[in-house]
Amino acid sequence: MSIWGDDSKRPNWGRCPVRVVVIGAGFAGLATIQGLRKSRACVSVIDRQNHHLFQPLLYQVATASLNPSDIAAPIRRIVRGQKNAEIQLADVTGIDVERRVVSLADGEVPYDYLVLAAGATHSYFGHPEWEEFAPGLKSIEDALEIRRRMLLAFEVAERETDEALRREWLTFVVVGGGPTGVELAGTLREVARMTLTKDFAHIDPSTARVILVEGSDRVLPPYRPEMSASAKRQLEALGVEVRTGQHVTRIDAEGVMIGDERIASKTVLWAAGVAASPLGRALGVPLDRAGRVMIAPDLTIPGHPEIYVVGDLAHLEQDGAAVPGVAPAAAQMGKHAARNILRAMDGKPTLPFKYVDKGSMATIGRGAAVAQIGKLKISGFVAWLMWMFVHVFFLVGFRNRVLVTIQWAWSYFSYDRGARLITGRAEGPLVQGLTERRLPSTEGAEPIHG
Amino acid sequence: MSIWGDDSKRPNWGRCPVRVVVIGAGFAGLATIQGLRKSRACVSVIDRQNHHLFQPLLYQVATASLNPSDIAAPIRRIVRGQKNAEIQLADVTGIDVERRVVSLADGEVPYDYLVLAAGATHSYFGHPEWEEFAPGLKSIEDALEIRRRMLLAFEVAERETDEALRREWLTFVVVGGGPTGVELAGTLREVARMTLTKDFAHIDPSTARVILVEGSDRVLPPYRPEMSASAKRQLEALGVEVRTGQHVTRIDAEGVMIGDERIASKTVLWAAGVAASPLGRALGVPLDRAGRVMIAPDLTIPGHPEIYVVGDLAHLEQDGAAVPGVAPAAAQMGKHAARNILRAMDGKPTLPFKYVDKGSMATIGRGAAVAQIGKLKISGFVAWLMWMFVHVFFLVGFRNRVLVTIQWAWSYFSYDRGARLITGRAEGPLVQGLTERRLPSTEGAEPIHG
Repeated sequence: MSIWGDDSKRPNWGRCPVRVVVIGAGFAGLATIQGLRKSRACVSVIDRQNHHLFQPLLYQVATASLNPSDIAAPIRRIVRGQKNAEIQLADVTGIDVERRVVSLADGEVPYDYLVLAAGATHSYFGHPEWEEFAPGLKSIEDALEIRRRMLLAFEVAERETDEALRREWLTFVVVGGGPTGVELAGTLREVARMTLTKDFAHIDPSTARVILVEGSDRVLPPYRPEMSASAKRQLEALGVEVRTGQHVTRIDAEGVMIGDERIASKTVLWAAGVAASPLGRALGVPLDRAGRVMIAPDLTIPGHPEIYVVGDLAHLEQDGAAVPGVAPAAAQMGKHAARNILRAMDGKPTLPFKYVDKGSMATIGRGAAVAQIGKLKISGFVAWLMWMFVHVFFLVGFRNRVLVTIQWAWSYFSYDRGARLITGRAEGPLVQGLTERRLPSTEGAEPIHG
Repeated sequence: MSIWGDDSKRPNWGRCPVRVVVIGAGFAGLATIQGLRKSRACVSVIDRQNHHLFQPLLYQVATASLNPSDIAAPIRRIVRGQKNAEIQLADVTGIDVERRVVSLADGEVPYDYLVLAAGATHSYFGHPEWEEFAPGLKSIEDALEIRRRMLLAFEVAERETDEALRREWLTFVVVGGGPTGVELAGTLREVARMTLTKDFAHIDPSTARVILVEGSDRVLPPYRPEMSASAKRQLEALGVEVRTGQHVTRIDAEGVMIGDERIASKTVLWAAGVAASPLGRALGVPLDRAGRVMIAPDLTIPGHPEIYVVGDLAHLEQDGAAVPGVAPAAAQMGKHAARNILRAMDGKPTLPFKYVDKGSMATIGRGAAVAQIGKLKISGFVAWLMWMFVHVFFLVGFRNRVLVTIQWAWSYFSYDRGARLITGRAEGPLVQGLTERRLPSTEGAEPIHG
């Protein structure tokens, strides 16, 4: 068999009647790709990662509960059955809207329709120097770095003899009280209180402090006030110190500053700012303050009806508010873009997009969550069960659903977490800055400080 | 509760009657730690990783079949119930055999008995510059790097227009025909032939070449010749090109040289040389050619009956051959060292170690393996079932056994592999050196080269 494979199974790209290029295979991009599967268009998918990521569960990788592969699936596997799709693992460097060409680091891809679904990344509010000290949570690499730092903090505290420094290693700050920050903070306390308690000889992990700092007046600002209040109560029941109406003004190797107050901490996590992918700027159309592209109701950009922007990268006003940057909205937008492209290919007019809010939920920890669906508000254990069910249901791939369900069930009954590995950074000193320490011989009467 | 925890649950280290320090928590070190669990000694475990690694299955992480957490367990969890053990995550920088002190990067740990179980690492036969082009397989980081390169090779080949370069990306070389090399080579062909076949539009992954290069006259040199022959047949049935009696003389970015012959390849994997941990040199006693410590029959070193060396770092002759560097031997040695320490603590003479060879097995691929137990020789499907059963049985942790069994069953019936994620190296260009490529517009008649 030739190296080219059996071309009869794939459309002859040179003869594609219509070429659609989709940049990004997240929730929005994937919905577009799948929405075009029966069409006569050829779909080129470009992503710089080889996998689709189920972002709502990323914090569980960050807190050592799940593996990366449990919440991610290779894009190729997901679109395997789709004969009109090809996938390119590549970096997009630019978009030429006049020539209708997407520039890659090493080539170009022409298009008839372009769907930009490149998503969002972190924003450090104009302080990129904070990133080194406060990793965010947008990719698997981010999650594994947070996991590494979290586990390492306890390991270092175990061996630290200076009590002030030990306290710093056992103090965690989460910046940002949206769903991501709430989930991280709650789970951090769970890990300290339940998972690690019996594992250390010289520290008591359950004394770890977790401080959640939120600039607005309540956590979970997009939710209803009763939900925010319930979340705050559940967080505090877990032992999280919730600080609302406070802004972090500085982050460095010693911790954070909130105005004049310093919180000494060796592990700061960033869940506060989101900025749209820089690819939005390549289109040359108006953006909002966060860099998101202002789109028309049919999801296209002004002056270019062949270019769609969907997902976290898009800004669309509806009923006086922006469509939120959440997974269900992204998926709905992606699906609608596919519909409109099919209509345009048939010469029909496009339709405006209407976001249907199917509800929101956020989990705080074991057995604790908040959920709102329309007027229905639920919190506590029932909300948590719903949360788990919904997330497992929407995970991509039956195999992943089975494995995640088993691991969650295991964790629930055993209080254990399966992925407590410190990996990465194999070379170089493990940790800088430990106090010089000399241990007494066994004849001395002093207790040995780990 | 004070930061120090409840000290009554742990011995007062300052008053330890006997202090045993164990360096390394692999198979040998773990067996020593567990062998001392009922003793009055205090055991300090020092490891630079926080997890115990089930190395025999590392190649499955490298070939995207299993997750790191499936084959690794946090050391703290394993010794959780053991009240006389503490664990320090630290780098050992030296051993002072006169003062009886282990030096860490940031402190010292005194000992009454020392058990050195630091294992082995790669050896590139005096060519450390080869490491960059040919990663080995000793740690999770190694395995993930191999996985990354393997998956990336197919991604790059998919987009490569130059046919010669494409062939290089679809050519894999495994250096070293021992169990690790055989397992890697066989599984690479499986991944190409079965897992990835339908996932690409422009390449046929099953045309990927896998070349296994072994210096001695047969693969699996420690095994009986009939086993070697069977393994070779099974490898060739899978499509591996087996080259015995050939030595790699050079490895660089373009591939390998075998004498004057160049094999152009972008992905070379190293399974050929093992060197003992450099810590062996810190003891100041005779070493063998590979850096392993020459030990006495009771596992101690000459002149220092309080220092034991076990596992891959130890060299002990028995019946005219060295005890092999395999997992069961390491575990037996570790257990025996604990026995001898207990005897020494009671003033009894130590006993010589006797390795009991319980058999060897190596897997070649799905449904294919070789096994020898005493005079019994088995190959093919039955050997493969035995291999799976034994490995699952010896995995640490019931949870891991359940998850691995499920994933193996899933892979068997679906031909899928669950961990096909490219992670790491999030910044910087994905791949250097792709051919500049311009794709024709859709009006042209040329097929689009991915």
